[in-house]
Amino acid sequence: MELAERLQADRFPELTDHFTYTIAGDGCLMEGISQEAISLAGHLKLNKLVVLWDDNNITIDGPVSLSSSEDQEKRFEACGWDVQSINGHDFYAITDAIAKAKLSGKPSLIACKTKIGKGAPNKEGKSSSHGAPLGEEEILGARVNLQWPYGNFEIPADIAASWAEVGKKGAARFAEWNETLSNYGDVSRAEFERTSTGNLGEYKDALQELKNKFVEDGAKLATRQSSKKVLDVLTGKLPELVGGSADLTGSNGTLADSQTQISANDFSGSYINYGIREHAMQAVMNGLALHGGFVPYAGTFLVFSDYARPALRLAALMSVRNVFVGTHDSIGLGEDGPTHQPVEHLSALRVIPNLYVFRPADSVEVAECWELALELERSPSVLSLTRQGLKAFRTNASENLSAKGAYLVRENEDYKATILASGSELEIALKAADTLAEDGILVNVASVPCMELFESQSKEYKDSVLGMERKIAVEAASRMSWDKYLC
Amino acid sequence: MELAERLQADRFPELTDHFTYTIAGDGCLMEGISQEAISLAGHLKLNKLVVLWDDNNITIDGPVSLSSSEDQEKRFEACGWDVQSINGHDFYAITDAIAKAKLSGKPSLIACKTKIGKGAPNKEGKSSSHGAPLGEEEILGARVNLQWPYGNFEIPADIAASWAEVGKKGAARFAEWNETLSNYGDVSRAEFERTSTGNLGEYKDALQELKNKFVEDGAKLATRQSSKKVLDVLTGKLPELVGGSADLTGSNGTLADSQTQISANDFSGSYINYGIREHAMQAVMNGLALHGGFVPYAGTFLVFSDYARPALRLAALMSVRNVFVGTHDSIGLGEDGPTHQPVEHLSALRVIPNLYVFRPADSVEVAECWELALELERSPSVLSLTRQGLKAFRTNASENLSAKGAYLVRENEDYKATILASGSELEIALKAADTLAEDGILVNVASVPCMELFESQSKEYKDSVLGMERKIAVEAASRMSWDKYLC
Repeated sequence: MELAERLQADRFPELTDHFTYTIAGDGCLMEGISQEAISLAGHLKLNKLVVLWDDNNITIDGPVSLSSSEDQEKRFEACGWDVQSINGHDFYAITDAIAKAKLSGKPSLIACKTKIGKGAPNKEGKSSSHGAPLGEEEILGARVNLQWPYGNFEIPADIAASWAEVGKKGAARFAEWNETLSNYGDVSRAEFERTSTGNLGEYKDALQELKNKFVEDGAKLATRQSSKKVLDVLTGKLPELVGGSADLTGSNGTLADSQTQISANDFSGSYINYGIREHAMQAVMNGLALHGGFVPYAGTFLVFSDYARPALRLAALMSVRNVFVGTHDSIGLGEDGPTHQPVEHLSALRVIPNLYVFRPADSVEVAECWELALELERSPSVLSLTRQGLKAFRTNASENLSAKGAYLVRENEDYKATILASGSELEIALKAADTLAEDGILVNVASVPCMELFESQSKEYKDSVLGMERKIAVEAASRMSWDKYLC
Repeated sequence: MELAERLQADRFPELTDHFTYTIAGDGCLMEGISQEAISLAGHLKLNKLVVLWDDNNITIDGPVSLSSSEDQEKRFEACGWDVQSINGHDFYAITDAIAKAKLSGKPSLIACKTKIGKGAPNKEGKSSSHGAPLGEEEILGARVNLQWPYGNFEIPADIAASWAEVGKKGAARFAEWNETLSNYGDVSRAEFERTSTGNLGEYKDALQELKNKFVEDGAKLATRQSSKKVLDVLTGKLPELVGGSADLTGSNGTLADSQTQISANDFSGSYINYGIREHAMQAVMNGLALHGGFVPYAGTFLVFSDYARPALRLAALMSVRNVFVGTHDSIGLGEDGPTHQPVEHLSALRVIPNLYVFRPADSVEVAECWELALELERSPSVLSLTRQGLKAFRTNASENLSAKGAYLVRENEDYKATILASGSELEIALKAADTLAEDGILVNVASVPCMELFESQSKEYKDSVLGMERKIAVEAASRMSWDKYLC
């Protein structure tokens, strides 16, 4: 979120200028992703990020001391953060600390020492007030201890009045901001409004030109390399694209020629060196997308989608648009062996609802799949790309054939079977069809770049692709996601 | 690994007494799991753990400064570690540092400042020497710079002699150790040998007794509660069982009555408070299993298997035995909403090769699945357990019916369909069968506690369960893993 602010402030300084506040608990700081995020925020000196840590020393199982004894403040300092420690029940202390945090020039942790269940006569400071309701009796006791005479959901008049004042101030600020926006140059205002609402700029002509060029060249290319060429075009047309990689930039082909990398001192670029932090990378992409103004994408090896998986799931749940670029997407990945070989990953990703998994089979399909991923405004996508070169098979790019998720590449009236294939295996399927044809056996071959899109087609269309004869699927991976077609 | 040493040393102090050495790179320290592990090791004061950090300031994309500026030494100190910083090319400095580390009384980080590709005339200190071979020319130059006149794979005589000396020392120490072992009391020696080789002790009679009791009681129980009862029996018989939870002990039912929790000062227990660190939890279980002497298990909500997934995959790849207990295994999980609702997780876990996913449907099946998981010496397992109570349906526990992965619970000669179900949905399937029977439609019902075991049965057996009529699967989750049966 704060990274989004920084990137947007660089383009629209008068329009984007906010702080980002996070409330974190003891458990949040134990999860590994916290370190990835803390380290990255410190590295990029995100000084408008303020984390209020509810330092209550309690987790579900009991006191934090059961499982942790780390010095959180020192840990944050080690990552370049400003750190303060206050009484979290003292509203004036909180106000002061936030004011100081804003001036610190660093991302800021405010350790707010609190008592969980404060006021509850028997449950204060105990894990019993963590995951379950206090119960009638404890609530009554807490009311007495906190001197809180008001009813349930009753907001005391003076507090309501203060809040209303805050609202008024906000309304005034918003009016000012609208004034600034309307006085903004027409082009910049349109650009701000366009990117903020998630509308894509005009990129289709340029992409079509590239698709045609792919057809013309007919070159054998790894799909990760085609993807790089697509990004060279897209990033030139869509400044809202923010790329990155988890330390595999060259391998992933995620850095376009025109892109420059951001750093703590310069946010004018559009490429983030995420470091070896796949989980935070996906989470940052989610934050960029939720903030608005950006269409994030970033790469690593497909097998490492496991590390990013919890955040990929959240992207799908939150209906945000971003693109996880997973290269080296099969056992054809090189010399790294089983730890780096994705076998189950395609199925494991396809099973996440509202996540679109694209596995293009040549350069034209790569361009088509990028286009489709960008147009899916309410869904994240995975682009599964090869390390090794793939033969071009598309001889016409006038229609985005990948849009239907699957389509026939080889069609025979008197076919005996339909071979379904994706990505690097389409070439193998086509070769098998040729070999069979030599023996007089005709088969159909379908390219299946995206099962999720295929599933949303009409029954008639699906039947026309799958056919009525035996179905065979070819993908260098677990068959689980194909079983539904293999009846 | 070091935790395994500590736990085993508590039981067999004369037999287990080793240090654990880790070599870590800059990337390792960026991954989130590093923080989970560093924090836990510091908390448990694992003072026989020595991490040698290859502090070469290089990652694949370039200098570490592209993506990180954290003060690693301060970060480790914040987690209770001893920290030293040395010249990693100075062998005497390494020896000294290790000696000091051993006396520090804390887990120890030795930051070894090194130059990557040392000696290579053009690639020293650069990322170009990270992921690719140096090449002929650079190797020649490095030989000159390092004054290394020896051939490829030639070990200089003085070094070979020194190594042989080390080997002799090791042989002598091993002979001593064998002496100690043979002088060990018979009972303890047998116990050490049994647990070290992974053979389980005698637990079957006690478990059978419990199964019979489950049948007798016929009580409605959440499978996580039945699992707790099973663990009460198993932990009493198998001291090699080491349990734990990622801060959901009460919810997971992973702490047996007889177990005590370990702490930095007391490793006599067999239960680990992992904290909110699912990834490290599974990784520690892998380490315990690889060390030998232990059968680890630990719990969290099933949905959080995503956090542990990279380590679960490694468990399967490395063929180690441990049990991931995932409770609250469906939308019946309570009030937490979609972030906590596992929908795709069962299929996503079933697709990992060599991982066994068990989803028992009543107390007897829970006991059977635990038994099967323990007997799978070369595979990790996931136990998927409910939050809500399930009716008992098994009326006989004389045979472990779950061992075949699936079996008919309702069988009719003149059946019109077969309903397949697992876990909490078996009850629903049985009710559907009853309702259909009232209308004169007979269906078969199969309980499917473990697809992986079912897949390994003969075709005849599989056909006998699946039947020849229409198949219907009932599981409160994505259907992907069921598609293979629904043709």
